[in-house]
Amino acid sequence: MRMERLQAWMSRMCRHPVIAQSDVFQLFLTYRDEREWKTGKRKAEKDETVGPMIFSLVDPEAPDLEPADVEQKCEQYSRFTKAMDDGVKDLLNVGHTHWKRCTGPLPKEYQRIGKAFQNLSAVFSTSGYQGEATLTDALTAAGKIYEEIAEIVAEQPKKDLHFLLETNNEYKGLLGCFPETIAVHKAAIEKQKEGDRLVAAGKISSQEKHGMKQRISSMSYSLQAEMNHFHSNRIYDYNRVMQLYLEEQVNFYQQIAEKLREALGQFTTL
Amino acid sequence: MRMERLQAWMSRMCRHPVIAQSDVFQLFLTYRDEREWKTGKRKAEKDETVGPMIFSLVDPEAPDLEPADVEQKCEQYSRFTKAMDDGVKDLLNVGHTHWKRCTGPLPKEYQRIGKAFQNLSAVFSTSGYQGEATLTDALTAAGKIYEEIAEIVAEQPKKDLHFLLETNNEYKGLLGCFPETIAVHKAAIEKQKEGDRLVAAGKISSQEKHGMKQRISSMSYSLQAEMNHFHSNRIYDYNRVMQLYLEEQVNFYQQIAEKLREALGQFTTL
Repeated sequence: MRMERLQAWMSRMCRHPVIAQSDVFQLFLTYRDEREWKTGKRKAEKDETVGPMIFSLVDPEAPDLEPADVEQKCEQYSRFTKAMDDGVKDLLNVGHTHWKRCTGPLPKEYQRIGKAFQNLSAVFSTSGYQGEATLTDALTAAGKIYEEIAEIVAEQPKKDLHFLLETNNEYKGLLGCFPETIAVHKAAIEKQKEGDRLVAAGKISSQEKHGMKQRISSMSYSLQAEMNHFHSNRIYDYNRVMQLYLEEQVNFYQQIAEKLREALGQFTTL
Repeated sequence: MRMERLQAWMSRMCRHPVIAQSDVFQLFLTYRDEREWKTGKRKAEKDETVGPMIFSLVDPEAPDLEPADVEQKCEQYSRFTKAMDDGVKDLLNVGHTHWKRCTGPLPKEYQRIGKAFQNLSAVFSTSGYQGEATLTDALTAAGKIYEEIAEIVAEQPKKDLHFLLETNNEYKGLLGCFPETIAVHKAAIEKQKEGDRLVAAGKISSQEKHGMKQRISSMSYSLQAEMNHFHSNRIYDYNRVMQLYLEEQVNFYQQIAEKLREALGQFTTL
């Protein structure tokens, strides 16, 4: 589980165009000894473009955005990530309940059905009536097959539901970071709104006010890029995991149908 | 349900070689008006060969059985019917539990899964990201299919488990009659054991003692015939209902696999 999650995190980091190419990430991936690690770490610690300062490195090479548009986009991302967070948590909830049922009461019930058939068959075999075997053999076989089905049912979630839950779990984690990210943007927007007042009070020049607008615009373009990256990954990830889930579910039901067909084949029409 | 059970009872009566040909049963089936019914009823009420007296009409045309063998056979039938009664009740128990799960929590869960997929799809569709439809359309379709599966699951027990339970219910009823039947036979065996003492005490002649042995023998042959009839019907009934059950279960799982394959087909490999 730890290994699998580390792998998923690593893949996700590698997929991110900025993180994948950043020095710290590359160092983490490629350092050969403690000396290299320490040197890199020291260099990273001196880096001043951290937190919101990262935006000062961004040059969108695009026209500045209107503050009202920036605010609106920010609201839209906030709504989307909040709604998706709810949706993901809902799916995780029902998924966990389903997992419990599929690994607990349901296989237990199939096992009990299997045992009941075998029990009845054992009783029948004591009848001393001739021609009994045509029924008892088939009934015992059917009982055993229900016990096998119990095992198939109990093992299935590891093959499909697990991945659906893991993907959603990962997204729950990612979505949990958005409120903070969006708060930074909203704070910048508020600051920018103060701009006019500050110009009027002679606290900042209109030149400085223009700089604020430019920086807000850069931030918004960055967030837009991040969202685009998020959406493109999300579409890829959910498409892939849904396909895997449904494929395995098809196999699962198909497999049970096969088993039951085998059980049915044991009976002879009298 | 009443109609179905009446039909099952009628079929069972018609299958019985003695009951099917008895005057009262024929009257029940064929009387045309109240007058015929009353005449037949009066005649039946005058019939003195009821209860254990019925055995006086039986001539096994076979050598008398040894009392020890009669007792042993009687014990065997008692053990068998008791054990089968337990087996049938066990199957009915697990069957009822399974019925409840299949019509209650299980379809509810499939419905919740379906809703969760559709929910997530609805959220995704608000992303404003281009190329979103490849995922949302498929996810909505998958969600709807899970709701259909919920309905299939909930409706299934009526198509198969119902008949398995009805057959076992019928046998529970039949098996419930055996203790009394067997008690009559055991009482006769006890009476016969007293025979030697009664002969010694001069209370009955050895001729009468021989008559007792003959009558016990007839009773035992009758019970043997009844048991043979029971076993042959049982083998037929269980064979038939198990085949029906398994056939329908195969169809059921096959149908779900088909539905899921349909859902899977909505997704495109990106």
